[in-house]
Amino acid sequence: MFKAIVSAETLSSALDSVSVLVEECKIHLEEDGLRIRAVDPANVGMVDLSLDADAFESYEADGGLIGVDLSRLEDIAGMAESGQLVQLELDEETRKLHAQIEGLEYTLALIDPDSIRQEPDIPDLDLPARVVLEGKDVNRAVTAADMVSDHIALGVDEAEEYFYVDAEGDTDDVHLELTADDLIDLEVGSAHSLFSLDYLKDMNKAIPADAEVAADLGEEFPIKMYFGFAEGQGQVTYMLAPRIQSD
Amino acid sequence: MFKAIVSAETLSSALDSVSVLVEECKIHLEEDGLRIRAVDPANVGMVDLSLDADAFESYEADGGLIGVDLSRLEDIAGMAESGQLVQLELDEETRKLHAQIEGLEYTLALIDPDSIRQEPDIPDLDLPARVVLEGKDVNRAVTAADMVSDHIALGVDEAEEYFYVDAEGDTDDVHLELTADDLIDLEVGSAHSLFSLDYLKDMNKAIPADAEVAADLGEEFPIKMYFGFAEGQGQVTYMLAPRIQSD
Amino acid sequence: MFKAIVSAETLSSALDSVSVLVEECKIHLEEDGLRIRAVDPANVGMVDLSLDADAFESYEADGGLIGVDLSRLEDIAGMAESGQLVQLELDEETRKLHAQIEGLEYTLALIDPDSIRQEPDIPDLDLPARVVLEGKDVNRAVTAADMVSDHIALGVDEAEEYFYVDAEGDTDDVHLELTADDLIDLEVGSAHSLFSLDYLKDMNKAIPADAEVAADLGEEFPIKMYFGFAEGQGQVTYMLAPRIQSD
Repeated sequence: MFKAIVSAETLSSALDSVSVLVEECKIHLEEDGLRIRAVDPANVGMVDLSLDADAFESYEADGGLIGVDLSRLEDIAGMAESGQLVQLELDEETRKLHAQIEGLEYTLALIDPDSIRQEPDIPDLDLPARVVLEGKDVNRAVTAADMVSDHIALGVDEAEEYFYVDAEGDTDDVHLELTADDLIDLEVGSAHSLFSLDYLKDMNKAIPADAEVAADLGEEFPIKMYFGFAEGQGQVTYMLAPRIQSD
Repeated sequence: MFKAIVSAETLSSALDSVSVLVEECKIHLEEDGLRIRAVDPANVGMVDLSLDADAFESYEADGGLIGVDLSRLEDIAGMAESGQLVQLELDEETRKLHAQIEGLEYTLALIDPDSIRQEPDIPDLDLPARVVLEGKDVNRAVTAADMVSDHIALGVDEAEEYFYVDAEGDTDDVHLELTADDLIDLEVGSAHSLFSLDYLKDMNKAIPADAEVAADLGEEFPIKMYFGFAEGQGQVTYMLAPRIQSD
Repeated sequence: MFKAIVSAETLSSALDSVSVLVEECKIHLEEDGLRIRAVDPANVGMVDLSLDADAFESYEADGGLIGVDLSRLEDIAGMAESGQLVQLELDEETRKLHAQIEGLEYTLALIDPDSIRQEPDIPDLDLPARVVLEGKDVNRAVTAADMVSDHIALGVDEAEEYFYVDAEGDTDDVHLELTADDLIDLEVGSAHSLFSLDYLKDMNKAIPADAEVAADLGEEFPIKMYFGFAEGQGQVTYMLAPRIQSD
């Protein structure tokens, strides 16, 4: 059983943060909210999303599991005008999801969850450094790095106590330093890792400019990024594996 | 003889409602206004447009007929800034149309009307149902249907007294019901017909979001849609032939 | 030695007015400001730009010469948000230009000036007619002419005392007449020349809509256009060679 009413904005935010990595996903319809975990085909980027029951206007579920084509569901949410609500209801018999927006009913065929890539176990990592920054600073770093390179180094200078972003291109370089004053928070620790810019660009697309993003970093370790949406009732965790440093 | 001054907005609205179906058309320069009738190459969609002399700042004509390339004339109207007027004058000798916008003169070569597809006779049809709705609801129905299918069923439920839109895709369906409360007006009658979405999408492009659109429907019959523009001094009628129901 | 701070808007305006003609250019870092001269590969369009030291928040230079990839430098300026400043500093040893925007540092590899097309000597021409008009009227003329042709005639009617624009297409023509009343200033003289519209369209892109553009014209002679930016502390001169009249 699944029956819920949610603002189109909240639904879109939730779906967008997953669809930057995968096209299809499993959605766990838990009693206390939705839960999605997914990993991209190359096994490099992972997402763990939860959307609390409190983020919905009304919410009833009893632990079911559905598989969805994300772009379809995003299109449905995108049909709503600003401020409109989306009513969702699962038809257990036909395995279809009914979405209703102001009298318009969309019947979405679900995907067999068994046909969808297995959900990842996102590991607990004891990462030594934490940087908390605004979404727009993530965007700024990623956009600048993208001008010169296809990978990006993120790290923390322990002595000088700043977070840095480095991108080295064939001819040009980009370097950004953010001290504790520029950041919301900085927990200094040994951290320097190289990442694929393509993945960070995708993840960046889903991060609101005004979101508070916590990024945990280590020495040639994955990065984990956390941010909230829907007034904190939705939470996203991204994990991105590092690239091997060539030098 | 033809000499007229008209706001660029009004001229654009008139041309756009025809150009969604055809690239060239004949324009009748009647004493009481312009008149255009056209049918698309496949003979499926027809348009009948009239723009009253009152819609013009000034208007003089004596029943001539010209053939025009619609995109050319739309480009001319598009050069004007908001609120600017377009002066049109036919040079009978050279068979060219002079368009003038704030000192800028554009000389448009006309097309021999005989080389343009014959104008359709749009039949009088005694259609049993009438639905009057806002342009934005037409847009909503067409946009939603387009997500799942390339055709769309429009009909009226006589028992429950509502207008409905149905689109069935390979996996997903869209269904919209609008009761008399959701509509500007509803005259219940036996009506259910299937239409090509491509045509409705094109016609929808020319329908202003705030227009009052009257749609006449029957049982496997064409749909006729009427709406006004230029404060009611322009009138458009679209007629679209039904598709044969496959089931 | 070169060290300067400038608003991103001013830097972008300067670069854009050159990049419409060439991809790379030499920049003279004079004591009293920047100076760029460039000619397009076909030797048809030339630009002479100066940006006074006063246009900068701070400016120090001693007559150096650098070669830059314009789109790279434009991208850097484009990263800044509205109102942000760009700090530029030349590293003489590495021959790299450091650009800094709010903590973000971009290191730009310079190009050997000797590898860049030689700078043109923009000739002094004693052109008999001068037309001073708003940038938006240049845009209007170029946009209209582009609808019918790939070249454009500019001239002055000495008897009737107006500036005119003529574009003749295969079927359609565009004609614009601007009298002294429509212009900021008009110095009547013998002038009629044909120009490639492609070049004028490119130059037009760099002309602000509210700029005061002075255009000097002659009889089958180049056109010279002058306009300012950055509150008059930047000056651009374009020179465009005429096309040979075919008739």
